[in-house]
Amino acid sequence: MGSAQDNKKGLLQRLDEGVVIGDGGFVFALEKRGYVKAGPWTPEACVENPGAVSQLHREFLRAGSDVMQAFTFYASDDKLANRGNEAGKKFTGRDINNAACKLAREVAEEGDCLVAGGLSQTPTYLSGKNKGEVQEEFRKQVKVFTENGVDFLICEYFEHVEEIVWAIEVCKEAKLPVAANMCIGPEGDLHHTSCGECAVKMVKAGADVVGVNCHFDPFVSLEAMKLMKKALDTEGLKAHLMCQPLAFLTPDAGKQGFIDLPEFPFALEPRICSRWDMHRFAREAYNLGIRYIGGCCGFEPYHIRAVAEELAEERGKKPIASVKHDMWGEGLRMHTKPWVRARARRSYWEKINPSSGRPYSASCSKPDNWGITAGSKELKQHSEGTTIEELQGVFSYIKA
Amino acid sequence: MGSAQDNKKGLLQRLDEGVVIGDGGFVFALEKRGYVKAGPWTPEACVENPGAVSQLHREFLRAGSDVMQAFTFYASDDKLANRGNEAGKKFTGRDINNAACKLAREVAEEGDCLVAGGLSQTPTYLSGKNKGEVQEEFRKQVKVFTENGVDFLICEYFEHVEEIVWAIEVCKEAKLPVAANMCIGPEGDLHHTSCGECAVKMVKAGADVVGVNCHFDPFVSLEAMKLMKKALDTEGLKAHLMCQPLAFLTPDAGKQGFIDLPEFPFALEPRICSRWDMHRFAREAYNLGIRYIGGCCGFEPYHIRAVAEELAEERGKKPIASVKHDMWGEGLRMHTKPWVRARARRSYWEKINPSSGRPYSASCSKPDNWGITAGSKELKQHSEGTTIEELQGVFSYIKA
Amino acid sequence: MGSAQDNKKGLLQRLDEGVVIGDGGFVFALEKRGYVKAGPWTPEACVENPGAVSQLHREFLRAGSDVMQAFTFYASDDKLANRGNEAGKKFTGRDINNAACKLAREVAEEGDCLVAGGLSQTPTYLSGKNKGEVQEEFRKQVKVFTENGVDFLICEYFEHVEEIVWAIEVCKEAKLPVAANMCIGPEGDLHHTSCGECAVKMVKAGADVVGVNCHFDPFVSLEAMKLMKKALDTEGLKAHLMCQPLAFLTPDAGKQGFIDLPEFPFALEPRICSRWDMHRFAREAYNLGIRYIGGCCGFEPYHIRAVAEELAEERGKKPIASVKHDMWGEGLRMHTKPWVRARARRSYWEKINPSSGRPYSASCSKPDNWGITAGSKELKQHSEGTTIEELQGVFSYIKA
Amino acid sequence: MGSAQDNKKGLLQRLDEGVVIGDGGFVFALEKRGYVKAGPWTPEACVENPGAVSQLHREFLRAGSDVMQAFTFYASDDKLANRGNEAGKKFTGRDINNAACKLAREVAEEGDCLVAGGLSQTPTYLSGKNKGEVQEEFRKQVKVFTENGVDFLICEYFEHVEEIVWAIEVCKEAKLPVAANMCIGPEGDLHHTSCGECAVKMVKAGADVVGVNCHFDPFVSLEAMKLMKKALDTEGLKAHLMCQPLAFLTPDAGKQGFIDLPEFPFALEPRICSRWDMHRFAREAYNLGIRYIGGCCGFEPYHIRAVAEELAEERGKKPIASVKHDMWGEGLRMHTKPWVRARARRSYWEKINPSSGRPYSASCSKPDNWGITAGSKELKQHSEGTTIEELQGVFSYIKA
Repeated sequence: MGSAQDNKKGLLQRLDEGVVIGDGGFVFALEKRGYVKAGPWTPEACVENPGAVSQLHREFLRAGSDVMQAFTFYASDDKLANRGNEAGKKFTGRDINNAACKLAREVAEEGDCLVAGGLSQTPTYLSGKNKGEVQEEFRKQVKVFTENGVDFLICEYFEHVEEIVWAIEVCKEAKLPVAANMCIGPEGDLHHTSCGECAVKMVKAGADVVGVNCHFDPFVSLEAMKLMKKALDTEGLKAHLMCQPLAFLTPDAGKQGFIDLPEFPFALEPRICSRWDMHRFAREAYNLGIRYIGGCCGFEPYHIRAVAEELAEERGKKPIASVKHDMWGEGLRMHTKPWVRARARRSYWEKINPSSGRPYSASCSKPDNWGITAGSKELKQHSEGTTIEELQGVFSYIKA
Repeated sequence: MGSAQDNKKGLLQRLDEGVVIGDGGFVFALEKRGYVKAGPWTPEACVENPGAVSQLHREFLRAGSDVMQAFTFYASDDKLANRGNEAGKKFTGRDINNAACKLAREVAEEGDCLVAGGLSQTPTYLSGKNKGEVQEEFRKQVKVFTENGVDFLICEYFEHVEEIVWAIEVCKEAKLPVAANMCIGPEGDLHHTSCGECAVKMVKAGADVVGVNCHFDPFVSLEAMKLMKKALDTEGLKAHLMCQPLAFLTPDAGKQGFIDLPEFPFALEPRICSRWDMHRFAREAYNLGIRYIGGCCGFEPYHIRAVAEELAEERGKKPIASVKHDMWGEGLRMHTKPWVRARARRSYWEKINPSSGRPYSASCSKPDNWGITAGSKELKQHSEGTTIEELQGVFSYIKA
Repeated sequence: MGSAQDNKKGLLQRLDEGVVIGDGGFVFALEKRGYVKAGPWTPEACVENPGAVSQLHREFLRAGSDVMQAFTFYASDDKLANRGNEAGKKFTGRDINNAACKLAREVAEEGDCLVAGGLSQTPTYLSGKNKGEVQEEFRKQVKVFTENGVDFLICEYFEHVEEIVWAIEVCKEAKLPVAANMCIGPEGDLHHTSCGECAVKMVKAGADVVGVNCHFDPFVSLEAMKLMKKALDTEGLKAHLMCQPLAFLTPDAGKQGFIDLPEFPFALEPRICSRWDMHRFAREAYNLGIRYIGGCCGFEPYHIRAVAEELAEERGKKPIASVKHDMWGEGLRMHTKPWVRARARRSYWEKINPSSGRPYSASCSKPDNWGITAGSKELKQHSEGTTIEELQGVFSYIKA
Repeated sequence: MGSAQDNKKGLLQRLDEGVVIGDGGFVFALEKRGYVKAGPWTPEACVENPGAVSQLHREFLRAGSDVMQAFTFYASDDKLANRGNEAGKKFTGRDINNAACKLAREVAEEGDCLVAGGLSQTPTYLSGKNKGEVQEEFRKQVKVFTENGVDFLICEYFEHVEEIVWAIEVCKEAKLPVAANMCIGPEGDLHHTSCGECAVKMVKAGADVVGVNCHFDPFVSLEAMKLMKKALDTEGLKAHLMCQPLAFLTPDAGKQGFIDLPEFPFALEPRICSRWDMHRFAREAYNLGIRYIGGCCGFEPYHIRAVAEELAEERGKKPIASVKHDMWGEGLRMHTKPWVRARARRSYWEKINPSSGRPYSASCSKPDNWGITAGSKELKQHSEGTTIEELQGVFSYIKA
């Protein structure tokens, strides 16, 4: 089977030349849609409901993702059969990994996307098994990935640097670019290895791209990235940087991140990031030198679109889905209510501090209340767009 | 064209016999997926991206919805062309309404679902045009609905009782059951008509089912429903009750609901309801005598699934998507981390007060921190399900 | 004994001509100082520790109070002996009321203050005794007040309008002006009498001044005052208005006010009002037509000073204690740290929303951090005052 | 003049044998009472209003303070004349220090209290003057202290260890015990000296007692104390430990503490500690080995009483003012309302998390609402104390 790389620039060239935008996490998005079970979090949906998986790929593609990451999270045989999970009784890891690659490839070809296969941490390692046994789990998956001609490999969601190093070693056998992300924050891995040391070990093991994913919010994750970058610089090591954080705010999480929060996984809603948080994340990540920027659990397509819109100038293009999203909320010019039209501007959304009750935000908002209703001139239907002059009139209503 | 009703129980019979579960709002869900533009909020996706619309229908069907509501929100010709909206230049209302009905029907037939066509408030009315002009807009849509053999009609998202009465009158011409919802809270409509009086007027105009949708959260909406029910009882009027609220918490919203909140529509995330809020909503709605229970903006498939799971006993069945969701978080028994397994019980989730910083909730959480990592016995992989005994061991760790 | 009124304008003349400023509550202030016991809240300190009581009177006089209200709260014989209270075993009501009047008179003569004797609700009434028995308790106190030549009488802290009417009737026998305050909020008294009706009944019973005290914060109390004013206007009744609220914020209190809050009385600290809250209270009360403005529990001398400073122009004078308090925080010009000097202006303090975590306020603040320390020119000691130019320099540092 | 020490155990002996309780801060308490000006914060009240100063001393003595600390804060000549302060034009430092010592002594003799004279940081140092000039300021004050026969000396409120070392050196000349406190948190002094190193330098300079005061809340301050203790242990240095923190919660303060918070000094109210915070502080301080435990700005007499009550067993006595305060809120047994009587127990107050909106607390409370009013049996007046049985009945009402 011919590789998808034949007609496309590869990952490393893209990273050398500019920004690569990743996708968002599939397990949380598909759990909310009804196709993934919280608890085991395994990706048998690739076989059971391929249309739902394809649709999510497609949404990320439209939102600006440059990578279709095959939905192979936790698709190792040991995990599929763990603790009563039914998935392992119906499907082998091979079945699922294979289906996942094909779905990702199919959608990737609708655009100019790369396809990646991914490994994640294994129950085998957590159970204390030896290196050979753990690498055997990985090797089974990588074999399917290479058979499917993926463009590169991702090792992600590892809590122990020892295990990710073993995973990277297996990936290197495939002669493909390797990106490696640990799900750690600034406190480092669960065996007391510092963030910086984790980065160094991953690069020394052969990873071309390193960073963090999952477990922490974008801003905590960037703190971890700073430590990784600094350590690599100190050691004189060269690698691209990557960051795929949560779309949940976690300033109060401990060392293991959001899974330790009492709200995990069924009451995290008040923590969901807005699109404006993602604008800020994309800008700060870019300024830090990170060139592979994507998301993990909690990221919906609109979050990725916000990343792509923030970096539209750097990338020389907007995502497809921006046809349904004027930058910085300007689509609200078309809203019926004039006080909502008054929100159609960057300065409004860039500074909004939604009343979340989080430490630096109040818990309630004071509603606008213009007392305008049927018959008021500001509500008149007309087919022309709202003019700047009309908008100025509307802005002038706004309380200081 | 043969009516979908031929082989199915109709809406009113279903409501007489038990509960009918609605779907969630399409505009917000598809805005996040990249197919609807915030501002105009019109449903041209039915023509432009039918696969994305079908997929959302299918997710609601799997989640337990008994009704596939054609995505015809704001699909009147005057709205499609309002204030610079491009949709009206590409498609007629007829194009969109027609496509919407076909998509809804197609998915409805994958289950035992009814198909509904819907009308919503018009710029024509808000511009102060007369009854004839407004009803003409409605009549165009209803014609398409009847041509497509929908099972019943919904008038929803009306802020003025005068306009919804005009809409109901047009619907009655079609000889189909009519459900009518205003987007109002306990303070009543925007022309100072009380909630109770709105209900009375809708029933007198011929609505078979009345209630509220959108604009307020489930619990504020139920306050409005109580007022409607009381007024109908006082007047001795008979009608079924219906409620399709927001999945955003809005205790601080004013009379016009969430659109007045400064966070509308792009920073509402911290207000998103959890599935447990929906369990409570479903139970309280049911106890109040409401038999058509669904959702509006903010409802994702997992919110509807929660409604259906809460009412599983009353309905004698669980939704399809419950294969991926053990009741009350019990799927967490399969989670790798023992302290997450310890959350696999109703008493945990039923009482959770997620740290949202809302008035009766703190803004930060204290994470669990068990200090267990690779090699700990509680992390051992095994293929049997977690036993009650193991779980007891895990519960005993929990801090009082 | 000659009346204190001989050389002074009386209460009603003062109210006709301008504003009368009351004092703050003694029981909470002296509880914190160690002289009053929370629970019984009785004023035996007048006999036991007269110096402490005089000192508090003096502080209120310096802060701008025009009235020294004898500390006779709950000094009825039935209350002194209630539920194990030791006070009643050591002293009679006569002992305490007599001592209280003398202390108030003594300090009043240090300025141009009126002396008032006060009645409050009785256990006798709450126990369901009859009118004669209840009035007998009041009559014993009023007798001591008239023997001591007080200038006027206050009935305050009554939860039932029936009882305050009985109290007013007894006061009228003394031929002195009578001010009457119920401890109610906008919901009215505990026997379902509306606020407005309470005001009407008090005036009809003979009260010259009516209003509310205690139980609710300044802003909730003003809502009650509006209802009282409206009812009096509707009935065509004439009376002066008075308001002596809590200095604790109670937006979440129920009908009985702050005693129902779980934090009462030992964890109310986060609710304490700032001096700026009192500026706002004084202004809003004045604008509403209230001319007797003072405080109750929680008010410390600096709160009364803020009331007097806000009304300095209307009264044609500042309070004595303003020698230690430049208006609107301007004394901070003399602060060592330049970023604290930058807070020396009305626009800073008038708008401050202290991070209280209350519904419209965040729970944490971001500290200023100028990085200036020993040796920096902005810290230089010099004996001249800070000039406007220097201050401008400092203001320019401030982040927008 | 004979020293006060003649008939009393000295500071060091008391610390060797048990706990010494300090007093609270005078500048904030007297600012609220109207005798000290925020901005300059100088203690001319000792001359201008000696009665007010004595009264505050007396309240702390009754609350359990073992030390009457002469009110000499900022009473150096350079500070009295700084930036337009009028105090320096009317009085010399000698006048004020002398009056302060006499007031402290007078009240100290009403109990078994020690008298301390205190030095604090100087504008001379902050202006960059040399050691000789700075020490000359200190020497003038110490001379007055020794003339007045104080029992020991306190150096407190120093932000730079260099300056406090100079102050300690001057104090040592007086041959009296020296206690030394810096106003620093865990981040150390303003010249980047760590907390631990500050402690070491103070002890090496001759301080007998070292610790922190002011600038941070009790719990942040104890973090600093841990660092000091650890450094002294590491160096093998012996000294008593002392802690006199704020009574304002400051988890969000930066390195310079509460003066950097935007609410300083006029909107700190929502941060005020409750008495239960002080119970916890006293216990944690004691367990850490701190034996001189007192307070600074924000401490009112009831806060010191809480410290003394928490340590009543260790000290073998309760403070005088406990005659007006049953331990753990038990005085509420005498409250009229039964639901307030239900709060008369340690388990209620020990665990209360007042709704402060701080990160781990909600911003609103749900009030109790028993619907009991005049005539209800639970409100009956009777002179016996509430029995345990009655109280049990009341507790049983309480919602879980």
